[in-house]
Amino acid sequence: MAVYTEVTDEALEAFLADYDIGTLVAFRGIAEGVENSNYSLRTTGGDFILTLYEKRVNPAELPWFLGLMEHLAKHGLVCPQPVAGRDGSALRGLCGRRAAITTFLPGVWPRRVRQAHCGPVGSTLATLHTAGAGYAPRRPNALGPHSWPALLGRCRARADEVQTGLEWQLDAALATILETWPSGLPEGHIHADMFPDNVFFLEDRVSGVIDFYFAATDLLAYDVAVCLNAWCFEPDFSFNVTKSRALLAGYQSVRRLTAAEKAALPALCQGAAMRFLLTRLFDWLNTPPGALVTRKDPLEYLRRLRFHLSATDGGAYGL
Amino acid sequence: MAVYTEVTDEALEAFLADYDIGTLVAFRGIAEGVENSNYSLRTTGGDFILTLYEKRVNPAELPWFLGLMEHLAKHGLVCPQPVAGRDGSALRGLCGRRAAITTFLPGVWPRRVRQAHCGPVGSTLATLHTAGAGYAPRRPNALGPHSWPALLGRCRARADEVQTGLEWQLDAALATILETWPSGLPEGHIHADMFPDNVFFLEDRVSGVIDFYFAATDLLAYDVAVCLNAWCFEPDFSFNVTKSRALLAGYQSVRRLTAAEKAALPALCQGAAMRFLLTRLFDWLNTPPGALVTRKDPLEYLRRLRFHLSATDGGAYGL
Repeated sequence: MAVYTEVTDEALEAFLADYDIGTLVAFRGIAEGVENSNYSLRTTGGDFILTLYEKRVNPAELPWFLGLMEHLAKHGLVCPQPVAGRDGSALRGLCGRRAAITTFLPGVWPRRVRQAHCGPVGSTLATLHTAGAGYAPRRPNALGPHSWPALLGRCRARADEVQTGLEWQLDAALATILETWPSGLPEGHIHADMFPDNVFFLEDRVSGVIDFYFAATDLLAYDVAVCLNAWCFEPDFSFNVTKSRALLAGYQSVRRLTAAEKAALPALCQGAAMRFLLTRLFDWLNTPPGALVTRKDPLEYLRRLRFHLSATDGGAYGL
Repeated sequence: MAVYTEVTDEALEAFLADYDIGTLVAFRGIAEGVENSNYSLRTTGGDFILTLYEKRVNPAELPWFLGLMEHLAKHGLVCPQPVAGRDGSALRGLCGRRAAITTFLPGVWPRRVRQAHCGPVGSTLATLHTAGAGYAPRRPNALGPHSWPALLGRCRARADEVQTGLEWQLDAALATILETWPSGLPEGHIHADMFPDNVFFLEDRVSGVIDFYFAATDLLAYDVAVCLNAWCFEPDFSFNVTKSRALLAGYQSVRRLTAAEKAALPALCQGAAMRFLLTRLFDWLNTPPGALVTRKDPLEYLRRLRFHLSATDGGAYGL
């Protein structure tokens, strides 16, 4: 559920009066997403998404995210575009939150990933990486490898509540990951959260990418590793190398991976699995009973992590 | 949050192939609503709502609800219209649930009720009552007064967990309500749940009424009592008689209340408050921690109930 802040009619009307997008026609909360409050908004001027940024997003970073979305769209990636108010500013205030209106994207995110999705996802990710090249401002990845020891530290005392032995497994895996973490790989702006619910399709073609609020400046191949985790495991957590091969081929049809990136793929995939394992574990241990958010099982990423720890080179991913 | 059943892309495509409404353009879960799973669905043919009926709805009663919605629309009430598949049937199966596509209604439900909403709500309710007159099939109100003792029985043992003394207060109030419950008042089809989130407005005019899945055949004035509970209390639970007067005047501009209905208003309002108090209390005591549904505070209806118990006649409501 992703409506944390209820927007009153008066507040909405006053807010819309600062835009040139016509008058209100419809306004409904969107169930998807967990970080911010999202509403689908229809005016006489068209369809939009209204986002109220909730506490996990740092307001100071919002201009970076919105600027990236504008830059990417200008360079060939279909993604939501911030709509400016009459004063030229897209970032505004509503009901005590920072808020922005963005354009509506047609398309449907795949509830069940098929092989046919994976090539387009790969090529779209590479398009994002190449399109981002000219966007000068950088944003350090707050959830990059330097953050994982502290995150594990905050979960350590209660990790074994989730599964006996989890603490030492995570310690051992994290030590391995940080020891083998690559350096010197190509950097750029990454989406960092390109899961199926953030990629819209129409007839097996990508119609747009959404939710850039984890985007950061980091290793491009780490973003590939996030996608391999997100798109290439089956519901039983077996790794589908046919999907992986399709995703990597799609990626390389737009941007070739370097030899060093290919060699680092197991470590990067281990790291990506660790990142989602740790944030899920933290949320699992800290979500109060009765909260509106579905807790996601951290152990799903322990299963993925084990696969990546067994991978010795890019061959495990179909390279 | 109201997406309990995830619909896969393949299932949705196969489902839409049975309709003549074009191909899929967008599909997003809707956050509002608590009983069923609702999606906003856009096809090349227009905008629709896809509803999957969850366990609280009896599948055998769905034709009654859909038939009522069709009948009401033909007689002047704007409400969602079931869209039939190619075989002429609007009620179909999807992902193990009964499902139906209905038309999309423009409008916004008021997050904060203003006096200007209350007249239009009253006249819309009366339009619903008069429009329903020719719909022959009846549906007994499963949540009518006969159901309240059993509902209280299921909450009794734990009622005092919510507030000390709640059990005896409910016993005393329910006895009073059932003793004074009116008989012989005009009957018809009632919405029975016309809360602000089920009434859409555009510029202070009602643009449509949604969510007929509590509708039933019962005392028309009981539906008025539900609306007085839903629309005329302030956030501090004080009763706003100006709103009530506007709502009743709006109602009577379309359908006059009889003298007996007016006299019964305190009892009917007490009953309506008791009905929502009891279902909220039951849900409060039976919602597992971590469930996706926000529990609504039953005591808000104890506050309302106390007001209605103090009312001696229609004058308390501005009549």
